[in-house]
Amino acid sequence: MGKVICAGLGPGDPELMSVRSDRVIRAARHIAYFRKKGRTGQARTIVDGMLRDDVIEYAMEYPVTTELYFGSEEYRNLMVDFYAEWADRLAELALEHDVVVLCEGDPFFYGSFMHLHTRLQGRAEVDVLPAIPGMVGCWNALDMPFTWGDDVLTVLMGTLPEAVLTEHMRRADALVVMKTGRNLPAVRRALDATGRLEDAWLVEKGTMPDQRIARLSQVDDADCPYFAIVLVHGQGRRPEAST
Amino acid sequence: MGKVICAGLGPGDPELMSVRSDRVIRAARHIAYFRKKGRTGQARTIVDGMLRDDVIEYAMEYPVTTELYFGSEEYRNLMVDFYAEWADRLAELALEHDVVVLCEGDPFFYGSFMHLHTRLQGRAEVDVLPAIPGMVGCWNALDMPFTWGDDVLTVLMGTLPEAVLTEHMRRADALVVMKTGRNLPAVRRALDATGRLEDAWLVEKGTMPDQRIARLSQVDDADCPYFAIVLVHGQGRRPEAST
Repeated sequence: MGKVICAGLGPGDPELMSVRSDRVIRAARHIAYFRKKGRTGQARTIVDGMLRDDVIEYAMEYPVTTELYFGSEEYRNLMVDFYAEWADRLAELALEHDVVVLCEGDPFFYGSFMHLHTRLQGRAEVDVLPAIPGMVGCWNALDMPFTWGDDVLTVLMGTLPEAVLTEHMRRADALVVMKTGRNLPAVRRALDATGRLEDAWLVEKGTMPDQRIARLSQVDDADCPYFAIVLVHGQGRRPEAST
Repeated sequence: MGKVICAGLGPGDPELMSVRSDRVIRAARHIAYFRKKGRTGQARTIVDGMLRDDVIEYAMEYPVTTELYFGSEEYRNLMVDFYAEWADRLAELALEHDVVVLCEGDPFFYGSFMHLHTRLQGRAEVDVLPAIPGMVGCWNALDMPFTWGDDVLTVLMGTLPEAVLTEHMRRADALVVMKTGRNLPAVRRALDATGRLEDAWLVEKGTMPDQRIARLSQVDDADCPYFAIVLVHGQGRRPEAST
């Protein structure tokens, strides 16, 4: 009797995964990961060179990513079937062996694995290994303290309505915006309306070899991948010499 | 010529630190860490058994922790001197060797090391190794997905005025409250006023052997250490079977 182990991979640099995830992945005989159809997939790329020679791989290919509106009935149905099928498959595999599911970032922080986690309850033993969230890798890539003292941090998805973004940006000190991509124009307008645009950074693939860092004000709206993260640093209380 | 390397330790379980932090700490000849006077210190406890036999240790003992109000002039002056002295000392050590500074959680996320980082700029080469923030360890300890879909996550300090807490709690989906301790009564009232109290958890020492998990509604106001973290899960969009 095995179990399903979701190993968080962290932000992308393989040396930033936890000692435990590293060990579990190197020992795994059965490994599964999400990817877009026809791609290698970011999760699989991160563990390149770490896997056993006799590893058996299960590529869980999303039936759809951003081609359909996530609110549509068709998108919902495709995804429900996809998660249900893979939950069945993993539960079946776990009857005989451990299966390691790779997950970028931290699995419980907006992670796709959560949809399997929910569906596996009561059907298989599930262990989740936490990891450094992508946003932490991105603020580390900027090499500046992110939150101080009693700064309020708000994490927003670029998919939210512009008015909601604006309302939160006005009140928070430090900001993270994920799922930017084609939502960048609205994110930018909301930052501008709240006086935060000049302090905003865009980080793509933070901690990875092809990491890219730019001031958001200098980035083209068309030049922003879905997984790039916008960051605005907090400027909270800190004991400094008197001025 | 050495450098100052701040190694993030993560939430407490030593196996949850990154492969890189683990390697750097095991190889370190000079190691520094913050602690309250007269205590072993949580950071030092986490690395117990990992250090070289010939390691040289520098305990950076806070002149004050919660005995003085953090907004007072006296507190500020004591802390300014403390950080200035240790920045001098680390810069001097780094002229000859690498010095590893331990930091619980992620160093750039409300970490004490940031005060040294700022003061070391231009005086020593500084590397910061990211880690799993304490809050991520805490939500992992609860073994439930924390944020879904386009949930808004807000991270608040219990030291904030109650009205500010309430305002943010009303608008966010998922909530983290740090620096609870003696601020718990105000945090609880704010959660209650916004209808979130029944869904709130208190996690102390998440991922550590003496981890404690409780529903906040069942915790005594007097029984909450400063570093315990309050969590309220997001309930956002997810593709489920039709209901």
